[in-house]
Amino acid sequence: MGLDKDSGITIGSIKKGKRNLITDVKGVKVGHVTLDNGSIKTGVTAVIPKEGNIFKEKVMASCHVINGFGKSAGILQIEELGTIETPIIMTNTLSVGTAMEGLVRYMLRENEDIGTSTGTVNCVVTECNDGKLNDIRGLHVKEEHVFEAIENASSDFQEGAVGSGTGMVCFGLKGGIGSSSRIVEIDGNEYTIGSIVMSNFGSKKYLTINGDKVGERIKEAQENDQDKGSIIMIIATDIPLSERQLKRISKRSTVALARTGSYLGNGSGDICISFTTANKVNHYSDTKIVDIKMVDENAIEQVFKAVAETVEESIISSMYHADTTTGINNRTVKSLREFLK
Amino acid sequence: MGLDKDSGITIGSIKKGKRNLITDVKGVKVGHVTLDNGSIKTGVTAVIPKEGNIFKEKVMASCHVINGFGKSAGILQIEELGTIETPIIMTNTLSVGTAMEGLVRYMLRENEDIGTSTGTVNCVVTECNDGKLNDIRGLHVKEEHVFEAIENASSDFQEGAVGSGTGMVCFGLKGGIGSSSRIVEIDGNEYTIGSIVMSNFGSKKYLTINGDKVGERIKEAQENDQDKGSIIMIIATDIPLSERQLKRISKRSTVALARTGSYLGNGSGDICISFTTANKVNHYSDTKIVDIKMVDENAIEQVFKAVAETVEESIISSMYHADTTTGINNRTVKSLREFLK
Amino acid sequence: MGLDKDSGITIGSIKKGKRNLITDVKGVKVGHVTLDNGSIKTGVTAVIPKEGNIFKEKVMASCHVINGFGKSAGILQIEELGTIETPIIMTNTLSVGTAMEGLVRYMLRENEDIGTSTGTVNCVVTECNDGKLNDIRGLHVKEEHVFEAIENASSDFQEGAVGSGTGMVCFGLKGGIGSSSRIVEIDGNEYTIGSIVMSNFGSKKYLTINGDKVGERIKEAQENDQDKGSIIMIIATDIPLSERQLKRISKRSTVALARTGSYLGNGSGDICISFTTANKVNHYSDTKIVDIKMVDENAIEQVFKAVAETVEESIISSMYHADTTTGINNRTVKSLREFLK
Amino acid sequence: MGLDKDSGITIGSIKKGKRNLITDVKGVKVGHVTLDNGSIKTGVTAVIPKEGNIFKEKVMASCHVINGFGKSAGILQIEELGTIETPIIMTNTLSVGTAMEGLVRYMLRENEDIGTSTGTVNCVVTECNDGKLNDIRGLHVKEEHVFEAIENASSDFQEGAVGSGTGMVCFGLKGGIGSSSRIVEIDGNEYTIGSIVMSNFGSKKYLTINGDKVGERIKEAQENDQDKGSIIMIIATDIPLSERQLKRISKRSTVALARTGSYLGNGSGDICISFTTANKVNHYSDTKIVDIKMVDENAIEQVFKAVAETVEESIISSMYHADTTTGINNRTVKSLREFLK
Repeated sequence: MGLDKDSGITIGSIKKGKRNLITDVKGVKVGHVTLDNGSIKTGVTAVIPKEGNIFKEKVMASCHVINGFGKSAGILQIEELGTIETPIIMTNTLSVGTAMEGLVRYMLRENEDIGTSTGTVNCVVTECNDGKLNDIRGLHVKEEHVFEAIENASSDFQEGAVGSGTGMVCFGLKGGIGSSSRIVEIDGNEYTIGSIVMSNFGSKKYLTINGDKVGERIKEAQENDQDKGSIIMIIATDIPLSERQLKRISKRSTVALARTGSYLGNGSGDICISFTTANKVNHYSDTKIVDIKMVDENAIEQVFKAVAETVEESIISSMYHADTTTGINNRTVKSLREFLK
Repeated sequence: MGLDKDSGITIGSIKKGKRNLITDVKGVKVGHVTLDNGSIKTGVTAVIPKEGNIFKEKVMASCHVINGFGKSAGILQIEELGTIETPIIMTNTLSVGTAMEGLVRYMLRENEDIGTSTGTVNCVVTECNDGKLNDIRGLHVKEEHVFEAIENASSDFQEGAVGSGTGMVCFGLKGGIGSSSRIVEIDGNEYTIGSIVMSNFGSKKYLTINGDKVGERIKEAQENDQDKGSIIMIIATDIPLSERQLKRISKRSTVALARTGSYLGNGSGDICISFTTANKVNHYSDTKIVDIKMVDENAIEQVFKAVAETVEESIISSMYHADTTTGINNRTVKSLREFLK
Repeated sequence: MGLDKDSGITIGSIKKGKRNLITDVKGVKVGHVTLDNGSIKTGVTAVIPKEGNIFKEKVMASCHVINGFGKSAGILQIEELGTIETPIIMTNTLSVGTAMEGLVRYMLRENEDIGTSTGTVNCVVTECNDGKLNDIRGLHVKEEHVFEAIENASSDFQEGAVGSGTGMVCFGLKGGIGSSSRIVEIDGNEYTIGSIVMSNFGSKKYLTINGDKVGERIKEAQENDQDKGSIIMIIATDIPLSERQLKRISKRSTVALARTGSYLGNGSGDICISFTTANKVNHYSDTKIVDIKMVDENAIEQVFKAVAETVEESIISSMYHADTTTGINNRTVKSLREFLK
Repeated sequence: MGLDKDSGITIGSIKKGKRNLITDVKGVKVGHVTLDNGSIKTGVTAVIPKEGNIFKEKVMASCHVINGFGKSAGILQIEELGTIETPIIMTNTLSVGTAMEGLVRYMLRENEDIGTSTGTVNCVVTECNDGKLNDIRGLHVKEEHVFEAIENASSDFQEGAVGSGTGMVCFGLKGGIGSSSRIVEIDGNEYTIGSIVMSNFGSKKYLTINGDKVGERIKEAQENDQDKGSIIMIIATDIPLSERQLKRISKRSTVALARTGSYLGNGSGDICISFTTANKVNHYSDTKIVDIKMVDENAIEQVFKAVAETVEESIISSMYHADTTTGINNRTVKSLREFLK
């Protein structure tokens, strides 16, 4: 739902999608598993890029590593082959391995050809460090949580301190999962561009909402002035784009980071993954020459604007929907909503 | 001088250098040649990275191409070898070839070994398209203007509609050359980080000054809503940095673009070049193992902040210092100062 | 013509095109201007990617910088936008500026909209250092040579010590311009992939022809054991490829370098540019959604093999066709043919 | 031991290290866990970059993705920060997740600060697909195998079908683990550069040993003409190099691939990681300005040659030491040695 009227915050002026979620892009689904028990504040969130078997019919994709202080896996092959062939998993940093094993098991179950009659599979697993609130050393994420998150996936899903966002901290306040969408018109047809973020970056005094440097007014002690922590940004669209154009799209997510107050801090692994459902790539293709569609470069400007807006809103939405949370070592991180009142 | 008190604008909170110019970094000099005559509104600006023969003793450098819709030359070798070995020339897009020939001639004059007993030379020539105000098809920049700009170089220099900035347009208002600097303290010693920009990007309605979306209040007709035109950003410092660190520094210039209102438009060639005078690289080295210094990565955070601040100020300063200009086809582009009153 | 039967050398086993030149790709033309007069041993070679106005209807393209110790211009925009919109010019290193100015003037003459009603133009100018044989400091290439080379362009053209290859040295022997082509079958249709190189790299003792380390048997003194000098490789095809695939194609040129005996020496600027005539990109597009074609990734393997083969042959062909040349300072560089007898 | 006299194969002419293994670089150790039981043909190999706690005192590093059709993890952060802070693990493709979880647990055990008083840890886990001989869908690698491989590490270690190389196939013959080293002299001092590979790429008919296209003479049926499978190449040295130089070093591994007969096939994830023990990077640094050393660029040429040679030898050595192996589905892959006789 992104930022609704109650929030009192409006990001930009481009028309929003019906749900104002990444799932406004037809076929995209999101599922959570939330692990919230005392000092355990973590989880798994799965983004399903399309209906049907994604290994057999992949989505065209690209990515951009804004700051590579991060441990996400599966990025190299997206870059090389321009496709995503699994659900995209988000979790905490130290659980990437476990989540990857879970995702491998899931893909093997769904596809008997993997590792026998065809090659292997490129599992995309992304992460942020939730160690401030979560007992991250406890490695509480288990392989089965990946299965659950995928199976939970739906076009309606919660934002805030849920799923992999349960223990995340953003601008010194509670972060987590945020999502929103925008509608752009090209040649008379409406297309959707949506985003979902796992937000865990920024330092409190720089928080900026729609140009307003609200962080400067938040009187809480600044325990940590460093822009640490990372953000994962996933952009989905049904606009026809080539891999090169998807890379350009991904780069515009940087604008959203800066608008909310990031200066791309040293310790923040900032990664953006983009895909389009308009160009599908068959694992087994009947023909060796395939048709794809792309947008004329002169029409890409409005897509860039929409990317910047939807990612900016998703970041703020992740904070707006997150409740004040007390985690490991009795550390409490407050909700943004406490300061908006 | 960047933004002085009269401007009423303060960007950030980090201490400024004495001159508040890139030339606060010891050894850096800047020189202009301004071609301003009727529909001729263009020129050449030269940035001299250090004292002495720069081909014999190069500066360590890196760069980052934020958006490669640009025609700057010399970038590939900076990336590969991590050095700059000539003055950095800024001019208009269609004059890159001429300026490069001029710079080649200058380097040949200064170095008899180039092309005979040693290899060639990597000339760095950057550009923005000033065709809105300048008769860019006239190719009015001549080789000798490169010599002049280099010879004019000094630690005091003008900002605004001068040199290569004479015909530039930024956020629909008059752009050009801007500069500023910041001081950071590391291990008890003060270091300087300065920047100079040639600004020619952005669309009016997005102009943001220190978080204030002033562009929305400028009532002038919006002839062109596209973020076209490009920006060249050059960052100089005396902080010891490795080539990898200089690349990280360069990337943070993106933050400054976004803060002033850019969404990294399709048509804008956004390029940043960074160098440090702390690590010098001899063309003819006596020893084959050389010592360099770098900053501990845990101390780089404040350098990132300073980069974002100085480049943001340089952009606004380029506009603040630029006078209303009437150029080709009687097109008039107004000064930002008319709207600040 | 590449390596004909008389040469006694056969590179690989894939079917060759009719002319065994890059111009087997329909629409591609090549023209030379040779400057050969005493110590002047240089020139200009122009590769025309397609029939008709290339600025209005661009070819889809990508590139790969194998080793960026080079001064070629126009590479950044190819990477960003995936198009080439001018003839590709090859010349000597210190003449890149002059050639670029020439190319700018040519493009302005052909396109009245550049710099007025539309933006500027991205001129692609590549280079190698011919200073061993040529009075490179004399800057003998003039702007008009670019016009001439473009106007000379035809589907038949000479290889060896001609055009920009006049003064080039490869593996300590005479290098220059070489070209060849291959035919691949996809879904029952024949496609062509051709290449042209300007060869100026390698050290004599490593020269390898078809696996035979002939360099080890060449008894001439080894003046210089360094793999200096650079190579420009241009690949043309009518196979439908996306920009990402063209980048993958470009990377396979590295294989050809290694097969002929290169270890990617420090001082060698090794650059590959690839384009396809199958996907054209209109400067002014009627529709905002455009159709392109690409090859199914499972069919790209044979294209990689063909790239490696044609570039390998073009390198050896550039040497095979080059005559023994005496240039500046009475330096003589022998023809490979003297050692094949 | 690389290729000893008995092999009858000599790669290049540069002096070899004492053991002719990557462990000739002081402090480097290698350990294997071999899982060889019927259709289980897989394992784990660990490369320890230096003595002591590598998280507290990291090695300077870089990497190069030659072809990104691969699933290795930890690459992004090496690129961004220029360090390696864990042992480097090699295993099969579908076990990357499990191995990463194992490595995370190992690092947590060794470092109480990870995830509490400091950030997380970047685990480097690399892979090739051993599915031709191994029951890769069985996921037989367990977390504890990572601990074992690390604990087994020593300066003497086996090559061939051991550790993660147990099930690998190279040029249609048995591949696996190979290693070798070279000595280069700089300013009168000897330095070592060593490599280890996990080889699993190439198609039989292209196999080339020292320029001899032996693959053409191997009469066995060519089941599979595609250059599938991947190779991981790890280069260690005590030569002082900056991150940029380590990247350049990594790129030269491509030469070794081509020399042995690769054309960088579509399906082969070809990745090189390089590190130097000469520049160490403290996790907790006392000073914020640190000294590092690098090689003068004019002296890097011989390092490039040594890289190409040692990696070429390591590839052939991996095959030379591997025994004929029968794995899943009764598939037998023969040893190169059967064809050298």
